[in-house]
Amino acid sequence: MTHESFRPFIHELAAASAEVILPYFANREFGLEMKADESPVTLADRNAELAMRRLIEKKFPSHGIVGEEFGTVRGDAEFVWVLDPIDGTKSFITAVPLFGTLIGLLHEGRPVLGCIHQPVLKQLMIGDGKQTTLNGAPVRFRPAPKLDAATLLTSDPLFPARYQDGAGFDALARSVRLYRTFGDCYAYLLLASGWADIMVDPIMNPWDLLPLIPCIEGAGGKITDWQGLDAARPGATSAVACAPELHEEVIRLLNR
Amino acid sequence: MTHESFRPFIHELAAASAEVILPYFANREFGLEMKADESPVTLADRNAELAMRRLIEKKFPSHGIVGEEFGTVRGDAEFVWVLDPIDGTKSFITAVPLFGTLIGLLHEGRPVLGCIHQPVLKQLMIGDGKQTTLNGAPVRFRPAPKLDAATLLTSDPLFPARYQDGAGFDALARSVRLYRTFGDCYAYLLLASGWADIMVDPIMNPWDLLPLIPCIEGAGGKITDWQGLDAARPGATSAVACAPELHEEVIRLLNR
Repeated sequence: MTHESFRPFIHELAAASAEVILPYFANREFGLEMKADESPVTLADRNAELAMRRLIEKKFPSHGIVGEEFGTVRGDAEFVWVLDPIDGTKSFITAVPLFGTLIGLLHEGRPVLGCIHQPVLKQLMIGDGKQTTLNGAPVRFRPAPKLDAATLLTSDPLFPARYQDGAGFDALARSVRLYRTFGDCYAYLLLASGWADIMVDPIMNPWDLLPLIPCIEGAGGKITDWQGLDAARPGATSAVACAPELHEEVIRLLNR
Repeated sequence: MTHESFRPFIHELAAASAEVILPYFANREFGLEMKADESPVTLADRNAELAMRRLIEKKFPSHGIVGEEFGTVRGDAEFVWVLDPIDGTKSFITAVPLFGTLIGLLHEGRPVLGCIHQPVLKQLMIGDGKQTTLNGAPVRFRPAPKLDAATLLTSDPLFPARYQDGAGFDALARSVRLYRTFGDCYAYLLLASGWADIMVDPIMNPWDLLPLIPCIEGAGGKITDWQGLDAARPGATSAVACAPELHEEVIRLLNR
């Protein structure tokens, strides 16, 4: 069974999570709580992950699952599903549709399929490292601009300064034409569909990083950690995505 | 003729601008140019403003018009329409639906009706200073949280530091729970519908400031300039909007 045969199942998972999430969007009954790390979680996060886990357990009981809200089972299986039900919970609780559901499939530890689903805007991106589609149509990075004409995205305006050398990020932000915090997974969707050029994320976890990799690479982009190392390696905790032509300069600025 | 009688016409203007804008959204043929001040403008901006101006000239030829792209006519008329066809052009050209069309009506120089229209998300906010509605349903600011539990929005992560005392803005940003750049007019729509608490904009023009005032005030919010002065006075060039209970503290931090 090749991993390509799991594509229809990704559509099933995305539909199941959207069915849970949409009634909570822009609805004050979303059951907000703060987790131990001060990040927010809602009933929508939890119930969407449970819905996806139920489908996986039913259809592929030998597969592993790594989820943001409910941890890991069978993490050493040949196939492991990586789930982030709402990546961008801070957008979600502000009623802004720049969050997404992330679904990744690892084969022997490497991400081979990835999905970013924005259920409000009805955008479903799937990448396999060779090709990326948005609602079924192939998409690509746009041609790399010079850095001073590029659009830079990040998730949180204060995160880079909090978690990394703020001077490096600041130098990058001041080198580009446009800098916005259209962040979380939606930023990677914008890059992979040719609407922005550089995304940097100083803090990543396996569930919000691994599903992005086949989407970015399939659209002709490069994704590494903040130091320029393989983003798919165990232990990567940050992400930088951009056109290959921009990558060296971006990494140099970030780490100067 | 009271200004209330112009409400149906605001719906006409919003529909006419949306009809122009939507085919350009997430479409690479939007005819991007840079204006003299380095701000971007597109065919969608220009053609949407022209469509609205044509409707006003036809239906109310004695009324004045102030528009971002095509200037002022009859600026001293009893009734003056204030138009910003795409407020948030930088979001628009990134295919992010956090821009909006602003339509304001001044009576003897004071804003009496205001409209924020997001045509992709199909959200139409209208305020008259006493009540604000979103798609026809009344909306309000949410109860003011303590500052350390508030959500702060601004348009550009670098603007406050560029145009005002960066230390004051930085102090505010570090005092709140959540800070994002879901900016431009969409931020005011989020405040007035109870999804965020504070919006600060260091650079405003009459066309992107005046239409917001009846929306914010009609939803129970307070809007002034950066110094706490009347946002509707001629010559106001910045904006701070929040719940009345937070206003004094926000202004004090910004100007410290």
